[in-house]
Amino acid sequence: MSLPNFLNFNIKSPLYCPKPSEAFNLHAAPSNLFLSSSKHFECPSSLFPPPNQSVAAIVFGDGSHSQLYPLTKRRSEAALPIAGNYRLVDAVVSNCINSNITKIYALTQFNSTSLNSHLSRAYSSARFGKDGGFVEVVAAYQSPEGKGWFQGTADAIRRCLWILEEYPFFELLVLPGYHLYKMDYQKLIEVHRNNNADITVAVSSNTSRHDDEDSGFGFFHVNSENKVTSFNEKPEIPAAETSVKINGIGNDSFPSMGIYVVSRDAMIKLLTEHFPLANDLRSEIIPGAISLEMKVYAYKFDGYWEDMRNIEAYYRSNMESTKKTNNAYNSFYDRYSPLYTLPRHLPPSLITDAVITDSAIGDGCILNRCRIKNTVVGMRTRVGEGAVIEDSVVLGSDNYESISTEEETIRTPLGIGEGSHIKKAIIDKNARIGKNVKILNRDNVQEGNNEAAGYIVSRGIVVILRSAVIPDGSIV
Amino acid sequence: MSLPNFLNFNIKSPLYCPKPSEAFNLHAAPSNLFLSSSKHFECPSSLFPPPNQSVAAIVFGDGSHSQLYPLTKRRSEAALPIAGNYRLVDAVVSNCINSNITKIYALTQFNSTSLNSHLSRAYSSARFGKDGGFVEVVAAYQSPEGKGWFQGTADAIRRCLWILEEYPFFELLVLPGYHLYKMDYQKLIEVHRNNNADITVAVSSNTSRHDDEDSGFGFFHVNSENKVTSFNEKPEIPAAETSVKINGIGNDSFPSMGIYVVSRDAMIKLLTEHFPLANDLRSEIIPGAISLEMKVYAYKFDGYWEDMRNIEAYYRSNMESTKKTNNAYNSFYDRYSPLYTLPRHLPPSLITDAVITDSAIGDGCILNRCRIKNTVVGMRTRVGEGAVIEDSVVLGSDNYESISTEEETIRTPLGIGEGSHIKKAIIDKNARIGKNVKILNRDNVQEGNNEAAGYIVSRGIVVILRSAVIPDGSIV
Amino acid sequence: MSLPNFLNFNIKSPLYCPKPSEAFNLHAAPSNLFLSSSKHFECPSSLFPPPNQSVAAIVFGDGSHSQLYPLTKRRSEAALPIAGNYRLVDAVVSNCINSNITKIYALTQFNSTSLNSHLSRAYSSARFGKDGGFVEVVAAYQSPEGKGWFQGTADAIRRCLWILEEYPFFELLVLPGYHLYKMDYQKLIEVHRNNNADITVAVSSNTSRHDDEDSGFGFFHVNSENKVTSFNEKPEIPAAETSVKINGIGNDSFPSMGIYVVSRDAMIKLLTEHFPLANDLRSEIIPGAISLEMKVYAYKFDGYWEDMRNIEAYYRSNMESTKKTNNAYNSFYDRYSPLYTLPRHLPPSLITDAVITDSAIGDGCILNRCRIKNTVVGMRTRVGEGAVIEDSVVLGSDNYESISTEEETIRTPLGIGEGSHIKKAIIDKNARIGKNVKILNRDNVQEGNNEAAGYIVSRGIVVILRSAVIPDGSIV
Amino acid sequence: MSLPNFLNFNIKSPLYCPKPSEAFNLHAAPSNLFLSSSKHFECPSSLFPPPNQSVAAIVFGDGSHSQLYPLTKRRSEAALPIAGNYRLVDAVVSNCINSNITKIYALTQFNSTSLNSHLSRAYSSARFGKDGGFVEVVAAYQSPEGKGWFQGTADAIRRCLWILEEYPFFELLVLPGYHLYKMDYQKLIEVHRNNNADITVAVSSNTSRHDDEDSGFGFFHVNSENKVTSFNEKPEIPAAETSVKINGIGNDSFPSMGIYVVSRDAMIKLLTEHFPLANDLRSEIIPGAISLEMKVYAYKFDGYWEDMRNIEAYYRSNMESTKKTNNAYNSFYDRYSPLYTLPRHLPPSLITDAVITDSAIGDGCILNRCRIKNTVVGMRTRVGEGAVIEDSVVLGSDNYESISTEEETIRTPLGIGEGSHIKKAIIDKNARIGKNVKILNRDNVQEGNNEAAGYIVSRGIVVILRSAVIPDGSIV
Repeated sequence: MSLPNFLNFNIKSPLYCPKPSEAFNLHAAPSNLFLSSSKHFECPSSLFPPPNQSVAAIVFGDGSHSQLYPLTKRRSEAALPIAGNYRLVDAVVSNCINSNITKIYALTQFNSTSLNSHLSRAYSSARFGKDGGFVEVVAAYQSPEGKGWFQGTADAIRRCLWILEEYPFFELLVLPGYHLYKMDYQKLIEVHRNNNADITVAVSSNTSRHDDEDSGFGFFHVNSENKVTSFNEKPEIPAAETSVKINGIGNDSFPSMGIYVVSRDAMIKLLTEHFPLANDLRSEIIPGAISLEMKVYAYKFDGYWEDMRNIEAYYRSNMESTKKTNNAYNSFYDRYSPLYTLPRHLPPSLITDAVITDSAIGDGCILNRCRIKNTVVGMRTRVGEGAVIEDSVVLGSDNYESISTEEETIRTPLGIGEGSHIKKAIIDKNARIGKNVKILNRDNVQEGNNEAAGYIVSRGIVVILRSAVIPDGSIV
Repeated sequence: MSLPNFLNFNIKSPLYCPKPSEAFNLHAAPSNLFLSSSKHFECPSSLFPPPNQSVAAIVFGDGSHSQLYPLTKRRSEAALPIAGNYRLVDAVVSNCINSNITKIYALTQFNSTSLNSHLSRAYSSARFGKDGGFVEVVAAYQSPEGKGWFQGTADAIRRCLWILEEYPFFELLVLPGYHLYKMDYQKLIEVHRNNNADITVAVSSNTSRHDDEDSGFGFFHVNSENKVTSFNEKPEIPAAETSVKINGIGNDSFPSMGIYVVSRDAMIKLLTEHFPLANDLRSEIIPGAISLEMKVYAYKFDGYWEDMRNIEAYYRSNMESTKKTNNAYNSFYDRYSPLYTLPRHLPPSLITDAVITDSAIGDGCILNRCRIKNTVVGMRTRVGEGAVIEDSVVLGSDNYESISTEEETIRTPLGIGEGSHIKKAIIDKNARIGKNVKILNRDNVQEGNNEAAGYIVSRGIVVILRSAVIPDGSIV
Repeated sequence: MSLPNFLNFNIKSPLYCPKPSEAFNLHAAPSNLFLSSSKHFECPSSLFPPPNQSVAAIVFGDGSHSQLYPLTKRRSEAALPIAGNYRLVDAVVSNCINSNITKIYALTQFNSTSLNSHLSRAYSSARFGKDGGFVEVVAAYQSPEGKGWFQGTADAIRRCLWILEEYPFFELLVLPGYHLYKMDYQKLIEVHRNNNADITVAVSSNTSRHDDEDSGFGFFHVNSENKVTSFNEKPEIPAAETSVKINGIGNDSFPSMGIYVVSRDAMIKLLTEHFPLANDLRSEIIPGAISLEMKVYAYKFDGYWEDMRNIEAYYRSNMESTKKTNNAYNSFYDRYSPLYTLPRHLPPSLITDAVITDSAIGDGCILNRCRIKNTVVGMRTRVGEGAVIEDSVVLGSDNYESISTEEETIRTPLGIGEGSHIKKAIIDKNARIGKNVKILNRDNVQEGNNEAAGYIVSRGIVVILRSAVIPDGSIV
Repeated sequence: MSLPNFLNFNIKSPLYCPKPSEAFNLHAAPSNLFLSSSKHFECPSSLFPPPNQSVAAIVFGDGSHSQLYPLTKRRSEAALPIAGNYRLVDAVVSNCINSNITKIYALTQFNSTSLNSHLSRAYSSARFGKDGGFVEVVAAYQSPEGKGWFQGTADAIRRCLWILEEYPFFELLVLPGYHLYKMDYQKLIEVHRNNNADITVAVSSNTSRHDDEDSGFGFFHVNSENKVTSFNEKPEIPAAETSVKINGIGNDSFPSMGIYVVSRDAMIKLLTEHFPLANDLRSEIIPGAISLEMKVYAYKFDGYWEDMRNIEAYYRSNMESTKKTNNAYNSFYDRYSPLYTLPRHLPPSLITDAVITDSAIGDGCILNRCRIKNTVVGMRTRVGEGAVIEDSVVLGSDNYESISTEEETIRTPLGIGEGSHIKKAIIDKNARIGKNVKILNRDNVQEGNNEAAGYIVSRGIVVILRSAVIPDGSIV
């Protein structure tokens, strides 16, 4: 046993992955039984140590939230409901679980109540003791040292180092908790380790994105060996050219996804020795590491990635969930890498007489004679007779209520009332849309704020506020 | 204010219950907040000791199952899927939980695997220690004394007395686990205690039922004070007359619901002293107690009650779940006494282009361009383009599968294939109905067995077997 | 508002409770079986509506914590380990669960990480959906309105009113989460309702307490009908006299326990109408309500109550757990109202050769040849050969570690080293006490701060800091 | 079937495992932080597919139980309490979990109630849906085909094949659930795959065992390439010689551990084609496979292995848990591969004045002035003043009870009474040993049955029966 075969092999072809078909021949699996499941074996992780013993994920619950207001009035971005049955953070946590990363710290401080509650109830069960849960919520807290709110991502991690000590990780994986994408982080970590990198940043190389818009994480210049050479707040060249050059040769600029793998030693040195006063990873620590000539590499990701930078992006990513072949949620019906969330035991959706087209219907809805088209309908949504909902996102309700016909005369029930017509709108949770309401934005207003009346308009999308009451016959 | 009203009052009208409105005035609850929740306060339990410290429920997982074959080929009756998202036993366990009965023993032996699994995973969590779970599954077992299968309900309870010792109950509540109804058992127990009874049997006084059919539990003669005077296997008078007389005066015969409250002392004496060799509660112990002149009372229940005696009854109770105002599941959308079951985290139902009428749609279905009418669609059901499903019960699938178009040429996918037409059928779990299949029973066969081809017909209802494959173009 | 019968009755014999023996006669329970369990039936709750449908508890995680430093350096008061296996907050949450109060909001902000983690993992499981968990953690959070940290108890509740809306409670029960006592809150609520009170405050009438010390909640003057007439920061008369007069006649002054029951309407009006700018319940809202002549009553509690005002109190309450007949934890071995906490699955304590006297030993300790006397030994504590521990509180470790003999030469292992002698000390979690260390406070220092060396002294008690390393041979 | 690269590599150095130190250098882990955790990285699993996607474990709950009577009077072997806090089956399930095998079917039929209950509550939670739990209990059941009890291990697996279909496994791992050992099954599976074997049997090569006693699984003859050449019920050569030859050259005979890895295809063919009527794996299927010249290999295991063949073995394995450096439970304090079991939240053990030597003390005991030596003390054990317990196994109680001094005059309390002296005995659960009882077996009886008086003697060990009452002053 003179050759360190394992490592040689690993270094030479780190991403080698036997085709499933080869594997099947080997073990003489009964062919008919595996026909349908054969696809689920992804590349065997040759990572050592395995991620569940060596990687800790840090998930941030909120970012530059101003553009998602009023959806973020009572919740952080990561707590936004998505695709009828989920919260945004479920996508990132599911990525972790499906990537064999089981130690996740969620750092929260902005409007964190519903996010903390969701994470606690969904993922932090006491099963099998201290290491049993998946997610440890770390809410911002006061301390005797007089420190207050987290001043930024770097400050937050620095102040949590004492908590992280409990878990002897090799790398920290830093993740925004409010993006939508599906990534096997094991591949990212493998690249990081094979490069013997200090930091690896994930960048989007998907040319179909609107790269002229800033997702808030800046851009990295990358050389031909995927080493990061510089960081910029803005793309250096016009977006149109960027996308052309991505498939070209030479240095290039890619939008950062805000996802960083940082080796333990590098993280500790950067936070405590090199930049002990820096508050932000994106604008201070990472550029600082580049300037210190630490080994910073990029990992190009060309899959679907939605950064939720504004209400339009949120709307768009919901719409994606209504498509049969969509990019965002290719795991919806994937038996082996599902999207996890808080389990429920709701009744079946009761549908009296509905025509439903290209829509995603969450659990336990009550849909009477209505037409629903190109719409995401959230859990427990009630839709009254004769209602029409098009191109919309309805977030549903937290509870059922039973209102008698009498009571209806004095109180608008939860959900969408009889005869109402809704088009290109987002109806936040627990809203009460009366009868014969028209939410059509006929004048095609692009921006507007009418919070007193229960709604705002952003990029042409009407957003009805959480728990808003829109009286019978209103026209929005 | 001189009278000890409470006690007098209690004795005189034990079921007195202050109107919610009175209660609200008392405490000056903000009226608008309680408008919708005001109905959930049922009669305060003046039971002492409270049921969660004094009542143990025994739930039987299977009964006279022959008439539900082939649905019971691989599962016991209580494990039958119902209303898209539930198992039959959930109705009875939910009744218990909502009646503040938290110690439930489920006795199982016939095809018990899926029932045991469901109960264990849904209700027997280790939360808060020994008394934490709700349901303790007691599967039939071999023992050194050489005893084998449970020989009947009485034998089963007798052999479990050592297990019951751990919990110092006052009364045993014996429940068939495969009936569908909603009952507050606290009222039943209150009547039992107020009568100082040894045994109280629940009988159905709902005249709308088909009382000419035997549900298998026999009939009780009841006098004007609700004391049981005799037991008969068959109603003594023609059914038509029975229902007339129910509202008349004098003794009457009511169908037993198979639900018994038995005081601890009475149960132990009956099983071990009076009738140590009796195997059956219904035909031996209860009639024996009557003949011994023990205090046996009846509790009349006039709500919806479905006894699942055969496939038609099973079909009927599923159909009930598709109605907006149904009798069976009035708790579907009742925030305060919900139906519990195994929690799930399935994706939203994806509906491409469907016309859905009077149907209940379970979680996570994939419904393409199709028409669904008067049908219960179970979890994870896939319906192909152009399919039509009417008056049917589709039980769904245990898992998703992803089959490529190529593979489809050699394997029928799970669910209902393109262009198929199904009417008045029950499609058991994991069935694979090919393309352009017609399950219409055009010849109106009433009974038929074609298990080799994957189906049987019972009372005019076609039942496609679990995991059956019905090839493209078949006509049933 | 005329008095309905229901309440009339209640006023007369609110605490009527049939003796267990009466109950047994009634139902002819087999006497031998109930011998040992007969005591667990406490007074039946005749509360309507029952607490689990009408009372929400607010638990505060931290108070005036300065006197508990350094124990509160990394954790809030409610997260302090107590009695080997518990956290302080478990006492209050268990009181709630055993009082049939199942909706608990824990408001946290100071050093809240470990408290949030404990509560989430122990009590907020997703079992049976939204209402399934017991405790909802509400960490202080930033919001778009620019609000920052909770400015006090009143401010915190005011800012959480939108969260409380989800649950239609009748009364709020406000609880400090860091006191040690056992109370059936149902009795407190019953008194509140019978008095038709706006606010009921719990006061300590236990004369054995050190009433000269201020627990920080002030004192209430109470008239002969238990109505509160005034509030004072300090007792009006010397403590000695107070305790004499408690058994006398007439008005009297009692220390507040910081426990308040407030009717919903009163709470909303006080926080939003009368005193919209008040930050504190104790010093502003409650005195304000008295001055407004609202109905404020006192509930006298004469059981054991430890307010944890300082390190000595914390030490004392731990010591109480080592006594066979103690006052603080009379529920330790009470089958029917246990102390709940995060479940564990630790190995048995392995004891090589120990003499243990009047001590409480937590789960999974490793005790070698040692002498332990009058000491609380926390979970996973390792004690080396020849060590002697007296009159101390050892908080144990979060994890096991396995250190080889070689490694020991360069690193002090977790726990208490060989030959060390500890007396009247508190050893915080994960401390590493080397070999032959003497922590004896020979000079009987009363106060001292030597944090750099890993300890402080408070009221003569040496406190070794969390994760401190005390080198071999040290003398403290 | 040409060899793909992946396997070539694997064949060359299948068990190569980089030293932790190498790994650390690679990733520049901060050395001091990993000092104590460096040992937990075992060989990286290069298994493809990984066990959690390809291996299903079958655990049998009972074996040849007659020799463990009366401990198995009310429970199956796998449910036997062990080491104070565990059940025997926990060792095997923990092995599975720590070997990344997450799909476990427990087949039970003999006295299965407590085993089913333990497994359900500890391991089959509904977390994260269908695949969330670890253990699926399959109790023997009746079926329409008229089949009754499992007739043996082969019959049981054959009848469960329809259940196993839900999980597309590559190999079945068959495990007796009542042995005590710690094995990484991944190594066993790796050997199986590298040999391209049909069946791999684990055999014990530990020469320190008492190989003259039959553990009931027979002996395998193994050639120099570890291929099994024959099976025998008895060792072919005298035990003494066997152990000598183990370290010699050539064919050899090793005791089977009853642990088999069987490839899916091989299992299905053996059970349904080759031997469709065989009931037993050990005596029919495995020898049959050898005679068919299938590829049957042996995996030699030289670690601690206790087969629990009789009461002496059970006693011995409990005693092992009292030793500081023991072979059986080397994972007790191993942070990274712990022993799992049903989580508890018991109070600390309260010890008034005890001298405890070489003993393991379970959770929540109450030990008054007593001497305990070389003894396993189970959960909730109460030991009275002046009692002496030596060389014994006390299984503890299921509940606490509170008996007043008065009641004690008519009822013996749970636990060990004042002044009693116990030596070399097993005290089963919930036993009530009165005051001044002597259980010393002074006459050194080797075998005896006095069930009526509450005990039997087996191999010189006195076994007090479950729930037995031994009156004050008794001498056993």
